[in-house]
Amino acid sequence: MALVVQKYGGTSVATLDKIRDVAKKVVETKETGNDLVVVVSAMAGETDRLIDLAHQIADKPDEREYDVMVSTGEQVSIALLSMAIQALGYRAVSFLGFQIKIITDSEFTQARILNIDSEKIAKELESDGIIVIAGFQGIDEQGNVTTLGRGGSDTTAVAIAAALKADVCEIYTDVEGVYTTDPSICSNARKLDKISYDEMLEMASLGAKVLHTRSVEFAKKYNVPIHVRSTFSQSLGTWVVKEDETMEKVIVSGVTYNKDEAKITIVKVPDRPGIASMIFKPLAEANINVDMIIQNVSEDGFTDVTFTVSEPSAKKALEIIKGVVKEIGASDVQHDKNIVKVSIVGVGMRSHAGVAAEMFSALANEGINIMMISTSEIKISCVISAKYAELAVRTLHDTFKLGEDAVSEE
Amino acid sequence: MALVVQKYGGTSVATLDKIRDVAKKVVETKETGNDLVVVVSAMAGETDRLIDLAHQIADKPDEREYDVMVSTGEQVSIALLSMAIQALGYRAVSFLGFQIKIITDSEFTQARILNIDSEKIAKELESDGIIVIAGFQGIDEQGNVTTLGRGGSDTTAVAIAAALKADVCEIYTDVEGVYTTDPSICSNARKLDKISYDEMLEMASLGAKVLHTRSVEFAKKYNVPIHVRSTFSQSLGTWVVKEDETMEKVIVSGVTYNKDEAKITIVKVPDRPGIASMIFKPLAEANINVDMIIQNVSEDGFTDVTFTVSEPSAKKALEIIKGVVKEIGASDVQHDKNIVKVSIVGVGMRSHAGVAAEMFSALANEGINIMMISTSEIKISCVISAKYAELAVRTLHDTFKLGEDAVSEE
Repeated sequence: MALVVQKYGGTSVATLDKIRDVAKKVVETKETGNDLVVVVSAMAGETDRLIDLAHQIADKPDEREYDVMVSTGEQVSIALLSMAIQALGYRAVSFLGFQIKIITDSEFTQARILNIDSEKIAKELESDGIIVIAGFQGIDEQGNVTTLGRGGSDTTAVAIAAALKADVCEIYTDVEGVYTTDPSICSNARKLDKISYDEMLEMASLGAKVLHTRSVEFAKKYNVPIHVRSTFSQSLGTWVVKEDETMEKVIVSGVTYNKDEAKITIVKVPDRPGIASMIFKPLAEANINVDMIIQNVSEDGFTDVTFTVSEPSAKKALEIIKGVVKEIGASDVQHDKNIVKVSIVGVGMRSHAGVAAEMFSALANEGINIMMISTSEIKISCVISAKYAELAVRTLHDTFKLGEDAVSEE
Repeated sequence: MALVVQKYGGTSVATLDKIRDVAKKVVETKETGNDLVVVVSAMAGETDRLIDLAHQIADKPDEREYDVMVSTGEQVSIALLSMAIQALGYRAVSFLGFQIKIITDSEFTQARILNIDSEKIAKELESDGIIVIAGFQGIDEQGNVTTLGRGGSDTTAVAIAAALKADVCEIYTDVEGVYTTDPSICSNARKLDKISYDEMLEMASLGAKVLHTRSVEFAKKYNVPIHVRSTFSQSLGTWVVKEDETMEKVIVSGVTYNKDEAKITIVKVPDRPGIASMIFKPLAEANINVDMIIQNVSEDGFTDVTFTVSEPSAKKALEIIKGVVKEIGASDVQHDKNIVKVSIVGVGMRSHAGVAAEMFSALANEGINIMMISTSEIKISCVISAKYAELAVRTLHDTFKLGEDAVSEE
C-alpha cells in the first residue's frame, strides 16, 4: 500500500462541478488501496478577488492582515472538497495550516515552511479517512497566519509528502506535464517523461510556470518524486526526480523564455574599486532582485554596467539608479523593456562541450543579435530583442532536436 | 481609562465604504482614551453565499466542514477592518478564534463558548493597538473550527467583554436600540433607554431579533453591561443591564410577536400516566424544540394535547406524531401554521396583579380569540390566529401605554 499526496490547483477546483470531478478522482485513487492526502488551492479567481478587496481598502495592505484574508480561499475549497468526497460515501476530514502545525517563518505573503507536524496526519490516516489540507497557508511560531506566495500550494504538497515520506507527490494541473518548450509557440513541443530536479529548477525560474520553484527545491532536498499531470485526463504526465545516468545523455531538455524582464545600462561608469557595490547595494536594500549583470572591459578608466531586473520592479530600480549615477559620476542611464531572455536547459551540458557555441550560431543564423549572456553548469541564457522571442525559441527547439518528430526519427 | 468592547454586525460592514465608516467610529472611540476590542461579523450576504455553496455540493453538508467554510466570512472582515484602521494611521491587529483560544464545545454549527484566553488580548492591549476579533467562531478542545450559530458574534463580543472585565459591550446594529415593539407595526413604538437582562432574554427568545439570546444569558451571568445602538447614528441606544428598582415600576416593557411557530393538536389521547412522555420523548430525540404545551382536562378518560414547535421543524414533528398517534391509540392529529404568538414582557409583573386579565380583555375587546396561553414570572404569551397579529400587537402596545405619546403625557 502506497502513501500518495495529491495536489489540485485552482483551475482544477474552479467550479462546484469541477470539485465533484476531483472528488471522484480522489476516491478512485483511494479505491486502489492507497493512503491519500490531498492538498487544494483556492477556487480559480478567488485569490484575485480577495487581493482586489485588500487593495481597494488600503494602498499598501498590511501583510499580516493580507495573509489572514487571502488564506480564506483555500479554507473554502478544502471544506467543499471534503463535503464532495463525503457525498460519495467516503470519510474525509479537512485541515488548516494551524491544525497540522505547518510552521513557517514570519515573512508574510512569502513565508517559508520550517516544519510540519506529521503526527496528526499519520493518526488520521490510521482511521482510513481521506485527508484534505489547505495549500498555500501556514502559521509562524507566534501563531500568526502566513502564506507562501503565489503557487505556494505546490510547496505545501511537497513539504507534506516529505514529512510523511510519501511514495509520490502528484501535482494535478491544467496541462499534461512539463514540455520541452511552450506548446503555444512550438506546435511540436514534446511532453517530457521525466526531468531532473535541477533542470526543473532552472526551467521553473526561467519562466516555465508549471511548478512553484520552491516546491522543486523542497522535493530535491528531501528526494520526493513529483508527478506533474493533468486533472482532466488519465494519461501519465512528467516525473520530476533525482538525476539518473540516462538523463546525462540528453544534452538539452528544454527551451524557456521570459519576457518579464527589463534591462538597465549605466553609461560611462568610472572604473574604480567599490563601484559595483555602490550600484547594487541600494537595489538590494530596496528588495529588488537583480538577475544578470554584465560589466564591459574598461576603456580610458570608464566602463558600462548593464543588468536586468523583473519588469514590475524596473521603475523603482530606475529611480534608485538615477540617484546612484550622480553619486558615482557616471554619464547616463538607459533602459530597455523590449527584451526577452531565452534559455536552454539540460544536465547533459555538464559533459558535452560546444553547446554554447551551437546556441550562439543558431541565433546568429537567424540574424538575432545577442545582448547579454549568462551561463550555469546546466543552462545558457541569452538576452535578445523581444521581437525575436518566438523565432529564437523555435530555432533553438529545432537546433537541439527537441520536437516530437525529431525524437521519433531517432 | 475604560475598556470598551464593540461589536459590528453584518449590515454595518456590508461594503468597503461601510467598513471605512466603522474604522472611523472605532478610531473615534480610541481617541477618547479607551482601550478597545472590536468584534466583527461577516459582510452581510457573505455567510448566506457560503451556506448556499455548501448546500449545492451536498444535501446534508458535514457540520464540521460547514463550520470550516462559513467561518471564513468573519476572517475576511477582520482583515479588511484592520487594514482600514491602519489606513487611518492607527495600530490594529486581527485575531481568529484559534489565535486567542475561544474554546467551545464540539457542537458544530451551534457551539457554546467554554473559555477564552484573555492573556493574549491583554498583552496586545498593553502595546496600545486596536484589537479586531472574528465573531461567530471558535475551536474545540481538539482544535476543530466551530461556529456559534446565527447571530453568534453577539455572544463572542459579550464573552470577550466578560473575560476582559470590560466596562461596556457595545453592540452596533442597523436599528437604534431595543423598542417597546416592532416599529414597522406600531409607528409610535418607543426606544427603551434600558432594559433588564431577564426582560431582554424573554424578548429575544419571543421574537425580537436585536440580540442573540445566548449573548444575553452570558451578559447576565457575568454582569456585562450591554449597550445596543446604531452604527449609522451618534445617538444613545438601549442599555441591557442588571435589574434595578426603577425597572419594577414599569409593568410592561415590551410587546413581541413570533409568526414562526406551528401548532399541533393530538385529538382524543387516552389519559393515562406516561402518555406525555410517549409523545414528547421522540420529539426531543429528533432534536425538535417544543415551545408551549397544553393538555385539557380529561373527559371520559380522553384528553386533547396541543403544542407548538418552530415552523421549520413542523413537518418533521408531524411525521413523528403520526406514528405516536397509532402507538398510544389517539384518534387524530391536527395542525395549524396560521398562528402567531403575542407576548407582553416586564419585570414589573412580578409585583403587579391583574396584568394577565388586562391582556386577555384587551384582546377580547377586539374580538380576538385566544387559543393557548403560557406565562412566566415576567411574561405572558397568547397564541392567536395569525391574521390578528398586527392588531393584537397594536392593541397591547396601547393598552399598556408603551408609545412615545403615552410616555410624554405622564
